[in-house]
Amino acid sequence: MRMKVFVFVLAVSVGAWQCEGSEHGHENQIFPLRMKTGSGGHYIPEVSCQSWRVGVEAHNVVEWKTVPADCEGYVGNYMLGKQYRSDSKTVCHEAFSYAKTLNITSRDIWVFDVDETTLSNLPYYAHHGFGVEPYNATTSDEWVEVGEAPALPESLKLYKKLLSLGIKIVFLTGRPLNQKAVTVTNLKIAGYHKWEKLILKDTSIYHGKTAVTYKSSERKKVEKEGYKIIGNIGDQWSDILGTNTGQRTFKLPDPMYYIS
Amino acid sequence: MRMKVFVFVLAVSVGAWQCEGSEHGHENQIFPLRMKTGSGGHYIPEVSCQSWRVGVEAHNVVEWKTVPADCEGYVGNYMLGKQYRSDSKTVCHEAFSYAKTLNITSRDIWVFDVDETTLSNLPYYAHHGFGVEPYNATTSDEWVEVGEAPALPESLKLYKKLLSLGIKIVFLTGRPLNQKAVTVTNLKIAGYHKWEKLILKDTSIYHGKTAVTYKSSERKKVEKEGYKIIGNIGDQWSDILGTNTGQRTFKLPDPMYYIS
Repeated sequence: MRMKVFVFVLAVSVGAWQCEGSEHGHENQIFPLRMKTGSGGHYIPEVSCQSWRVGVEAHNVVEWKTVPADCEGYVGNYMLGKQYRSDSKTVCHEAFSYAKTLNITSRDIWVFDVDETTLSNLPYYAHHGFGVEPYNATTSDEWVEVGEAPALPESLKLYKKLLSLGIKIVFLTGRPLNQKAVTVTNLKIAGYHKWEKLILKDTSIYHGKTAVTYKSSERKKVEKEGYKIIGNIGDQWSDILGTNTGQRTFKLPDPMYYIS
Repeated sequence: MRMKVFVFVLAVSVGAWQCEGSEHGHENQIFPLRMKTGSGGHYIPEVSCQSWRVGVEAHNVVEWKTVPADCEGYVGNYMLGKQYRSDSKTVCHEAFSYAKTLNITSRDIWVFDVDETTLSNLPYYAHHGFGVEPYNATTSDEWVEVGEAPALPESLKLYKKLLSLGIKIVFLTGRPLNQKAVTVTNLKIAGYHKWEKLILKDTSIYHGKTAVTYKSSERKKVEKEGYKIIGNIGDQWSDILGTNTGQRTFKLPDPMYYIS
């Protein structure tokens, strides 16, 4: 409940921007996208920041460190408005439509990433420029340690529906092993009560490895145990690329950060 | 020139919708997205059709036959407005930024798909519901045979810039071999004057095969000849999935049709 009030206050504080389909005109605000300097055009954030965001989702824009500074308002509006929820809903809808077509066995699992897939760190990012600020391990870990990240509502619905089909859930996260207790607590508070495995990153094994390598390796281990990955959902391309990706993959929106 | 006038007339005929960042309010127009019936919400096309489009670009929405009927207006507006151009520009910008980092050799090639990547069939689709109508081989072939599909302006710019870096171009298209002459003519009229290879589909070999199979197989042949595919750009996921995909791939927007 505290989180709901918090997000509501944030939504109000963002001000006039309501959502991408807003009636408030932005066309007179010149808000150039930095990576596009030199091309001589005049940019409208609604258009060029949206192009950047869609470029991220389609994996054309890769290896970026922070959100372009001029897109902070756009990304904040997106995350707090209707579009993020609608985009997430569409992905989860496609995922469930696919799951319903399958004949489920007791060895079938669905892999969920945690951050921005299962749990939302939006309350944190809303205080840190929606991805414009460089990643800060100290403040980020402090936020995780609070253990009150809310569920992503569309993901929680999908999770429940997949469970109802008899599919087992595996959470596979880049969070380190020493955040296991708080992650378990947070998942339960957020409404996730049942899972087959919760895999956190053993940094003694995967130190310096990419997320693609770590996640591929852990998925392979799971498959060697006899499980079949019928679905795999994450907000990062590194969640769904590499090997042992699963029978079908789903990319949830995330314009706030990029993990290789 | 005829095409420009044609597109202009269409743009005007679409009416009040100007672009996705339009100041015209759509929030009172209830315009439910068909694949979302039963979830009980009220839908705004600007939001839910955008979610569908982004779902297509991120390869979450797959194997679709036609654009959802209720998104015809949205897709038409998108294709004729600023967003399609801006989205294409962002992809081509990322592609060229990547290409500039490479040390080019005489064996380096970049694969371009043709339709909706190199040449635009928007004048045709604008008369056929922007993808709402099922594919019609007869009228579609008639349009191709005219040989006047305009260049996609951002793709043409990218093509010229890649050539200037010394990169060779290979066009790889699902168009059948018997459309070779008209395709050559059309490419030249549109401003594409130089290429290493133009590969069309030999339907006697690839009849009944998917585009992923056909394109992977042809890319493999090209690599066996000693070329290195340093980049690969297409509007369909089937252009950039499979094997021998190239060192990096780029997905141009296309909300009008899906090819497996």
